[in-house]
Amino acid sequence: MRKPIIGVMGGAEVSAAVARDAYELGALIARKGWVLLNGGRACGVMEASAKGAKEAGGLTVGVLPDDTTEHVSPSIDIPIVTGMGAARNVINVLSSDVVIACPGSGGTLSEVALALKAGRTVILLGIEVGAALAEYRASGQLEDAEDPRDAIEKVQATLRNRGF
Amino acid sequence: MRKPIIGVMGGAEVSAAVARDAYELGALIARKGWVLLNGGRACGVMEASAKGAKEAGGLTVGVLPDDTTEHVSPSIDIPIVTGMGAARNVINVLSSDVVIACPGSGGTLSEVALALKAGRTVILLGIEVGAALAEYRASGQLEDAEDPRDAIEKVQATLRNRGF
Amino acid sequence: MRKPIIGVMGGAEVSAAVARDAYELGALIARKGWVLLNGGRACGVMEASAKGAKEAGGLTVGVLPDDTTEHVSPSIDIPIVTGMGAARNVINVLSSDVVIACPGSGGTLSEVALALKAGRTVILLGIEVGAALAEYRASGQLEDAEDPRDAIEKVQATLRNRGF
Amino acid sequence: MRKPIIGVMGGAEVSAAVARDAYELGALIARKGWVLLNGGRACGVMEASAKGAKEAGGLTVGVLPDDTTEHVSPSIDIPIVTGMGAARNVINVLSSDVVIACPGSGGTLSEVALALKAGRTVILLGIEVGAALAEYRASGQLEDAEDPRDAIEKVQATLRNRGF
Repeated sequence: MRKPIIGVMGGAEVSAAVARDAYELGALIARKGWVLLNGGRACGVMEASAKGAKEAGGLTVGVLPDDTTEHVSPSIDIPIVTGMGAARNVINVLSSDVVIACPGSGGTLSEVALALKAGRTVILLGIEVGAALAEYRASGQLEDAEDPRDAIEKVQATLRNRGF
Repeated sequence: MRKPIIGVMGGAEVSAAVARDAYELGALIARKGWVLLNGGRACGVMEASAKGAKEAGGLTVGVLPDDTTEHVSPSIDIPIVTGMGAARNVINVLSSDVVIACPGSGGTLSEVALALKAGRTVILLGIEVGAALAEYRASGQLEDAEDPRDAIEKVQATLRNRGF
Repeated sequence: MRKPIIGVMGGAEVSAAVARDAYELGALIARKGWVLLNGGRACGVMEASAKGAKEAGGLTVGVLPDDTTEHVSPSIDIPIVTGMGAARNVINVLSSDVVIACPGSGGTLSEVALALKAGRTVILLGIEVGAALAEYRASGQLEDAEDPRDAIEKVQATLRNRGF
Repeated sequence: MRKPIIGVMGGAEVSAAVARDAYELGALIARKGWVLLNGGRACGVMEASAKGAKEAGGLTVGVLPDDTTEHVSPSIDIPIVTGMGAARNVINVLSSDVVIACPGSGGTLSEVALALKAGRTVILLGIEVGAALAEYRASGQLEDAEDPRDAIEKVQATLRNRGF
């Protein structure tokens, strides 16, 4: 059986507190034996979550918007080079068994919306997504986490329901 | 000089009131001499806006998620067949000079977010997108319209600023 | 009934003779009342075929690899902005009812191959594609044309078989 | 430093001899400590090369055309789910440091062409691609291999030139 792939999405420019949370998410994902997947670049939530996972001995996949690996994080083991710009956001969420979303702006919100549309459970950590997605919250597909540990517990519960 | 392309986004299953607004948007876009672009399918806001534009003598472009034209609206003149599923949402917004968003769910919200990230002005007609996009509202890139006529006036003002 | 969409593919840097053929193809497509679709940029076979169609009063669609319209041909009426680089080659061929291929290099050959895989008839005009595609030639899906007029006659025959 | 990623492309329906070569390529790639990347499905060259790599203890990445993992090979560790059909062929080649092509049909030839256009070295193993790609053969970017071991030696030489 393959390992679960957990997507961590979030902004390219974030506060130190958000970066700390992203680092901790990466570390906790690695310690569970899961694969971390993110947008691959060497900045923001992408860099922090990859570094956290890598330093905890995990495997990291980065799905880049670029057509080269020039901007890839040094903590990414497997760069997926798409050359597709924001269309790679769709690949990020389809390739993730569960998605965790940290604060970001338009790109991050698009990933939350695309993940929900694709049937993925999305765990929000410090991001408010508004009434437009209320239907998914009502159905239990969209959940809030209090901190990284809480997010990971909610991921674990979802994975169990998906047969992992 | 080419004609402006106005994107109208919104759900595949919508109320009769939303469909009426979408039809009127299409008709107003056509009467301005603009090109209507949407997701191309024969349902919801896509079908209604294409029909409105077509019956008012306009030109209509539909960017389909499918790899065939099987589900295209009969009111679409130019079906763009992507075979890319939700990744075509990126093409919808990049190809539009201005985007109008009607009520929908995850797919529509992803288009609002992707359009804003790509620098497009987005006019919301009866859709609430939440605090996650507050920065774009503050900068004037994200606006609310009261009704289809108001939306078209806001599109006109934006086009003027973009040199059309 | 919508108008047929004819894709004309070919290199970004071509000889004057190839550009003349591409211009003539565009003109003949427009005079038939068909829509011309190509890769949209202001160079090579794209520029020449769009100009030929436009000057003959036709409608032209350009599916751009870029995420802006900066490099679009002035003869393109409808720029489709993908931001997807070479992945837009797939959209070029899926959106065409029939594909004509002029000389080019890797990009053009990828479009020939993708079009055949997607079930499109491909008419070659001065391009040699080798034994790897022999199966499609055997089945009649891949044909050679002697000159632009011959290519257009072969397109016409294919369209008839597709119900246009 | 990350491990090199070697793409193995080829048909979904192939002879037993081609499948044996693909299996051996996968095994040799894994023994070198490289990552195997292919199109991810449980058939043809994809299945055989993934199995070869997996049974030799390697890491395997499969970039699926589908929007689910339903058709993924059981020998794939990391399924990348694109939902983009043939547009994933672009991702296959951009994500590979070197590409090896086995016999196939339109899809495989599109990958050879896209890889060359993207600047990748392509090693052909039993596939004839014709005069349309002669310029790449002349420049040394397109090479023929006699058997899987020869292909791997040519990959090794290319990797050295790329700084691995």
